[in-house]
Formats: sequence, structure tokens, C-alpha cells
Amino acid sequence: MAARTAPRAPGTEDTRTRLLATALRLFSEHGVEGTSLQMIADELGVTKAAVYYHFRAKDEITEAVAEPLLDTLARITEEAAAHRRRGAQIEHLLNGFVDLVVGHRVLVAVFSSDPGVARAVEKTLHHAGNFKERMLAVLTGPDPDVATLVTANVTLAGIALAGGSPELAGVDDDALREHLLITARRMLGRPRPRH
Amino acid sequence: MAARTAPRAPGTEDTRTRLLATALRLFSEHGVEGTSLQMIADELGVTKAAVYYHFRAKDEITEAVAEPLLDTLARITEEAAAHRRRGAQIEHLLNGFVDLVVGHRVLVAVFSSDPGVARAVEKTLHHAGNFKERMLAVLTGPDPDVATLVTANVTLAGIALAGGSPELAGVDDDALREHLLITARRMLGRPRPRH
Repeated sequence: MAARTAPRAPGTEDTRTRLLATALRLFSEHGVEGTSLQMIADELGVTKAAVYYHFRAKDEITEAVAEPLLDTLARITEEAAAHRRRGAQIEHLLNGFVDLVVGHRVLVAVFSSDPGVARAVEKTLHHAGNFKERMLAVLTGPDPDVATLVTANVTLAGIALAGGSPELAGVDDDALREHLLITARRMLGRPRPRH
Repeated sequence: MAARTAPRAPGTEDTRTRLLATALRLFSEHGVEGTSLQMIADELGVTKAAVYYHFRAKDEITEAVAEPLLDTLARITEEAAAHRRRGAQIEHLLNGFVDLVVGHRVLVAVFSSDPGVARAVEKTLHHAGNFKERMLAVLTGPDPDVATLVTANVTLAGIALAGGSPELAGVDDDALREHLLITARRMLGRPRPRH
């Protein structure tokens, strides 16, 4: 483990993890802006002061929940753009994004749609503002026409939001991954890749 | 005009309309749960008491904003289900839903994704709870397999969320309508209808 810059009391790392898991659950039920620090504290059975020990404000919690997801999206997009062929770029982005959605179904749906998230994250993470634009650019290529732009938007939005939809909660990860990819390729007019 | 059950002060109908328009704008910026009655009053330049004159609680405002939209969705779904052929059912639903999304871009996106809306509306409108299920049922037909269920979910979610996306704000209504329909038909494997 890397050395920490500040000492922490025993058990606080565990509390931090539980706090973020609780925040995520409340975000998905009430939206980010509908979730208060007090609600998070109540759910955890701790005082608001205990929450403040870990995070100074709710935006910091939102950021901590969003950060791994945004980092992964940034990495996937960068890797995708590094491929030479358009087909390989699109396949890389679709596979990475679908994996993320399947692995974090509710999280991605909440963070794709809640207007509170974009603002909270915008303040603190400079790279977050245009990550969707960069994902779209990989899907569309340069100077897209309206048809291409609409299709790319529907594809990303549909995958992100459908992944967390209650009607698909009973579908197992492998089946959801497979069918999201098939749907996305059909939407974008891409052939199934040869292996 | 129909007779009213209670007398209203002059100009109140106009205030109600402005109030709902302001609420919608704040909802799309802050989410439903991130918007308070106080914020709505401040934006309108009126007192909170003036807001309470029209609505007893924020949920009533959410419902008043959502109601025409839900009524339209219920009507479209019912009309679609009344067609005899599956192809005609799907075409009716897609055309109606795309028209709604194009006509109320931000509204549909907010109401498709904000967790606060479903709960506010659920309390008061009995038909709202399963309108998405009924729309999906029209798209999938009875006893759908997983592939069909995933595709229908991605289609509805993608259309609803993409319609309000900032990247498509500059696309005019006719072009957005046309390309959303083309994308949806391709996703569902439907042919372009003959006229």
C-alpha cells in the first residue's frame, strides 16, 4: 500500500467505504441533489460530524463516487482513440463502456442522468466537462452529419440508462453485456467483429 | 371556457403558467429534488406564500408539470396497442414518443432520468407506475426474450435522454424527429414504413 499523506484513525477507511456505498444507494433513490449529508449520516447510524471527518461537503462525496468511473471512461476513450482503424476505435469504446455499465448498473444510470452530478463534478474535475464529447467523437469520427450525431447520442444514452433500468435488473451480466453490444453495433451500423 | 369550481384572482392563471415554466427550467438545471419551493419563488420574484397559493407542495408542481406528458404517453400507448398489426403498433408508438421528445426536449430527458420524479408522480397518479412497462410491451410483444427486452429498453431510454442532450440542441425539430425515428427503427430491426 502507498504511504498516506495524513494519519487516519483505525477503521476509518472502512467507514469511508461504507459511506460511499451508502451515498451511492441514496443517490440512486433520491438523486444526488435530493440526498443530504444528514440522510447519509442517518443511514450509516453515525453523526453528521463523523461524515465531515471524511468529506467536507456533499460535492466531495459525489466526486469520490464519480471519480473511478470518470477515470475509467477517460482511459477507455484514450485507448480507443489510439487505434488506427475506425472500426477498432468504435469496438474498443463500446466494449469498455458496456463493461462499465454492466459492472456498475445503477451508478452509471444515475451519473448519466442526474443534473446534480455534472455540476458537482465539474467544479472539481477539470477533465470531466468534455468526456462525453470525446466519447461521441470516437463514435462519430470528425465532422459528423446530423444522422451520425443523433445515432451516437442515442447509443451512449441508451446503453447508460438502460443498464440501470429495473426491467433489466434480472438479466445476468454476461447476457446484458452481449445484448447491449449487439444493440449498439446494430444502431451504429457496425458489423460483429471477427475474433 | 369551462366554469371553475373556485374563484381565482385576476392574473393568477398567468402566474400559475409562469410558475410551471420556471419550475421546469429549475428542474432541468438542478433536478427535481434539488429544486425547492423557495428557489421557484425567488426565480419568479414572488413570496413563498404566493407559490403556496397555487400549489400546496413541490410534489404538486412536479405532478402538474408531468401530467400532460404522462397523459400523452398513456394515449399514444393505448392507440398503438389498438392497431392489429405489430408493425403498425410499433410505428404508432415510435412516432408518438419521438414527437413528444422533440416537442419537449429537456422535459422528457429530465422526467426520464430524475429519480425524484417517479416518486413524486407515483404518489398521485395511479396510472404512472407502469406506463413504461406498457410502452415496452408494445415494442417487445408478449413474452420477449432477453435480446428483445434489452433492445426495447435501450431504444426508449436512448430516445428520451438523447432528445435533451446539449450536443443535439442545435438540431432543428424536423431533422431530430427524422433521425430519431431512423435510429429507433434500425435498432428494433423495423423497415421504414411505406406511405
